[in-house]
Amino acid sequence: MSEGVVDRNRVVIFDTTLRDGEQSPGATLNIEEKIEIAKQLAKLGVDVIEAGFPISSQGDFEAVQRIAREVHGPVVAGLARAIVVDVDRAWEALKDAEKPRIHVFISTSDVHLKHLFKLTREEALQRAKEMVARAKSYCEDIEFSAQDATRSDLDYVCQMIEAVIEVGATTVNLPDTVGYTTPDEYERMISTVLSKVKNIDKAIISVHCHNDLGMAVANSLTALRAGARQVECTINGIGERAGNASLEEIVMALETRKDFFGLHTRANPAELLRTSRMVSSFTGIPVQPNKAIVGSNAFAHESGIHQDGMLKEKRTYEIMDAETVGAGETNLVLGKHSGRHAFRKHLSKLGYELGDEELNRIFFEFKQLCDKKKVVSDRDIETLIMDRVQSESDAAYRIEQVTVMTGNKMEPNATVKLIASDGSIVTEATVGDGPVDAVCKAISKLSGIQAELIEFNIAAITAGLDAQAEASIKLRFKGRVVTGRGSDTDIIVAAAKAYLHAVNKFIEMGTFEDETNADPYRRDEYGPLAGISRAFDR
Amino acid sequence: MSEGVVDRNRVVIFDTTLRDGEQSPGATLNIEEKIEIAKQLAKLGVDVIEAGFPISSQGDFEAVQRIAREVHGPVVAGLARAIVVDVDRAWEALKDAEKPRIHVFISTSDVHLKHLFKLTREEALQRAKEMVARAKSYCEDIEFSAQDATRSDLDYVCQMIEAVIEVGATTVNLPDTVGYTTPDEYERMISTVLSKVKNIDKAIISVHCHNDLGMAVANSLTALRAGARQVECTINGIGERAGNASLEEIVMALETRKDFFGLHTRANPAELLRTSRMVSSFTGIPVQPNKAIVGSNAFAHESGIHQDGMLKEKRTYEIMDAETVGAGETNLVLGKHSGRHAFRKHLSKLGYELGDEELNRIFFEFKQLCDKKKVVSDRDIETLIMDRVQSESDAAYRIEQVTVMTGNKMEPNATVKLIASDGSIVTEATVGDGPVDAVCKAISKLSGIQAELIEFNIAAITAGLDAQAEASIKLRFKGRVVTGRGSDTDIIVAAAKAYLHAVNKFIEMGTFEDETNADPYRRDEYGPLAGISRAFDR
Repeated sequence: MSEGVVDRNRVVIFDTTLRDGEQSPGATLNIEEKIEIAKQLAKLGVDVIEAGFPISSQGDFEAVQRIAREVHGPVVAGLARAIVVDVDRAWEALKDAEKPRIHVFISTSDVHLKHLFKLTREEALQRAKEMVARAKSYCEDIEFSAQDATRSDLDYVCQMIEAVIEVGATTVNLPDTVGYTTPDEYERMISTVLSKVKNIDKAIISVHCHNDLGMAVANSLTALRAGARQVECTINGIGERAGNASLEEIVMALETRKDFFGLHTRANPAELLRTSRMVSSFTGIPVQPNKAIVGSNAFAHESGIHQDGMLKEKRTYEIMDAETVGAGETNLVLGKHSGRHAFRKHLSKLGYELGDEELNRIFFEFKQLCDKKKVVSDRDIETLIMDRVQSESDAAYRIEQVTVMTGNKMEPNATVKLIASDGSIVTEATVGDGPVDAVCKAISKLSGIQAELIEFNIAAITAGLDAQAEASIKLRFKGRVVTGRGSDTDIIVAAAKAYLHAVNKFIEMGTFEDETNADPYRRDEYGPLAGISRAFDR
Repeated sequence: MSEGVVDRNRVVIFDTTLRDGEQSPGATLNIEEKIEIAKQLAKLGVDVIEAGFPISSQGDFEAVQRIAREVHGPVVAGLARAIVVDVDRAWEALKDAEKPRIHVFISTSDVHLKHLFKLTREEALQRAKEMVARAKSYCEDIEFSAQDATRSDLDYVCQMIEAVIEVGATTVNLPDTVGYTTPDEYERMISTVLSKVKNIDKAIISVHCHNDLGMAVANSLTALRAGARQVECTINGIGERAGNASLEEIVMALETRKDFFGLHTRANPAELLRTSRMVSSFTGIPVQPNKAIVGSNAFAHESGIHQDGMLKEKRTYEIMDAETVGAGETNLVLGKHSGRHAFRKHLSKLGYELGDEELNRIFFEFKQLCDKKKVVSDRDIETLIMDRVQSESDAAYRIEQVTVMTGNKMEPNATVKLIASDGSIVTEATVGDGPVDAVCKAISKLSGIQAELIEFNIAAITAGLDAQAEASIKLRFKGRVVTGRGSDTDIIVAAAKAYLHAVNKFIEMGTFEDETNADPYRRDEYGPLAGISRAFDR
């Protein structure tokens, strides 16, 4: 096979977990978490990482900038509306990247142009051209998105695409923004663009699908078959509403049905499960057991059912191997008596390279865990490492002590002792409707953050009654929603950690509230979905 | 529009939550739960309920029989391999149904025929014809499934289909058993069957898709567009491995994109969310927040984000309304001081009609809950009702008292007092690695069931720190896996209830272990996926 043929069949994986994925309600990530995910995405082998939307907030700007500087391998993209300040700000964040990409968007549907942008078609076209040209003056790699393309007049979309390619767009994206299209319809759209847009050979066609009607993956794949060569997707399919197309499903469908699609990617499937767990853990968004590829039931033989005759059945009922996506973890052969060196070696095998100081801390926590758990699994170790990422930000409070008494015939009560960042110790005892209620009320009183609980989940990370539990708590405070998480062998302590984690986020956010109006947690005002008309009114 | 046109465009919804859905690892349902789900499916307006696989176990037989007798409206189907005992047993279970359907299946793929069935193509064809004819001698409505159709020789599939229609099959199903196909491919398959099978006008073509590559819904819908008129699906998309096509996604896609598909169903979308919650609760399989239609984030305005300018944005970013699928619950205006009559009226509004005795029990529990929670929501009430279903089976043990002390600087310990079915009281105190561990160890000791914990989840059902928590616990004991669940405002008590619920299931199962080898919890031996060659060897 010649080089040319190979290239023509290669699909560019554009991951937008950190941009569209983070727009999931409550899925706010701090900068350290974003960098950790970006590094993992690089390890997974995605081609493009959309790191954020720099104009939307100081936090997003810094995250994009740090990822541009610290993450190597993939193209790093930043989103920008088709307005001057957005494009300039995106470039400022991206300029230190090895391979920067500015991603400019404007809507093409009449309903968006009229109600959100307050622009005529002609004005929007003009603006798109100007802003793509401006972006092009900064860097070579420019993506343009025709938001709500699937509900737009196709002739107008073609006209728009042709115009932006003319001024330098190298990738043109046709998003199904509201998750409305079907495979047949989307295929026709791609074919039409390919045949009608004269300069289409100068750009790559990209697709971006939402899952509102459950068809995001099939729509994306059908578009690839029709000639698109970039696919925008997120880990675990997270994102606005019902989310985006799942990266893991797209990668594995192309892999498993190579015979049908004849396409390939540079992604390494063996990193899929680890990436999925990291994203689920950091965002606090669980993955349902029957989720394709990365759900706990996705591979029958993980479930303990059909263990007899596995070999025979593998050929008859399975089209993929769990090992392919990185399952089949080995339990750690290390224990209480293992040394630091063996521990570091094992971490390295798992893909984590830590500095000495970090290693010491994780090693200490590992030893503590060995005292509590009979078997420490790789999954447990990963959890320790993920917790580290979260506690790296300077926390306003840390938990010193939690004591709880509860039961069905008594008033649940809790005593909580916190250490503030200045070293002072504060203590509070409270009763509650349940033990979590009691603990959280105590933390509320101590911190002064009276947040409303929106969602609360606890799951055991590993099997066995002595498993570590991972709690995730979604809180609302002054109109902002954040997710906190914590893990412990005690579910009440895990809940306390998660609650405090969220409370610390609120406190952290408070510090730059007065400095700028743009903050990463108020997407309702600064995200791409709203306030856009106001931005254009400027 | 004439009557004929209406019929030609109507899609038959075949729900297999109770058969294929229940084959999800650990999703075992007891008979009362199955009947409750079947009644809800009837309310939802599905056309066919596949109630189980009567030969597979005594429990499955009884469930199918009771659903056939007690659930009115939909066709009730029972699954049978293409062997005499299966068909006869299915009919025995179904014969009292208003509208019975025997569903006979055999594989058509060479890999299945060779390794699982040990039959030649000719032998399989012969057997299918004989068994469909036998089923036809019992009832008029016969479905035939060509298992693994998408990996079969299409000429052979057509030959098989034609043969079974000849002897009376009224619905012919072409399952994508391993979740392997794509929309294009599946569409071609349906078109070929339509054009090649001479007597195809005498039967309805059915599709049955699995979601291993994330395309189950799109494959199903594309097949409907190509001419299939029955779609097999499950609530929440549960089922083997990555599950089946989601009923709620299919119904809402056909509804939302009527312009494109031109098809309609008899399902009432307003019952989707309630059905989803019931199935999730009874099976213990959570629904991820970004699940289309029924996930907690599926509708943006549920998330509290974009609340400003909702009206404007509804038209620009939403293609469906949360209310359409039954969201937008009103909090109960009843409280502590409300009377039984008002409570009954409210339950009736929610769709629950209870007998006097049941009403009294739920009313008592409702009053208890009012003491603990400031706001009692409809969701809370539904949870009480679902708990009732589960505790209706004669439990070996009930919880009398749970007391727990825990914290990060102490040894967690629990005291548990249980009442056995004979009225005797047993008590045990234990320490554990965490409070759940301690409570479960105590229950283990008291019941003598030393089960292994496989999965453990706790989620808050409603918002607020005083929310009810719902725990689900998956246990393995002597090679069997069951799921228990329990709810309480105290997560430890909820966990204790869930653990005991699972333990009671094991004890209940033990009683018929000696009576028959076939039990509903050992699908590895008696499910449709294995042991099939043995059955044919008889």
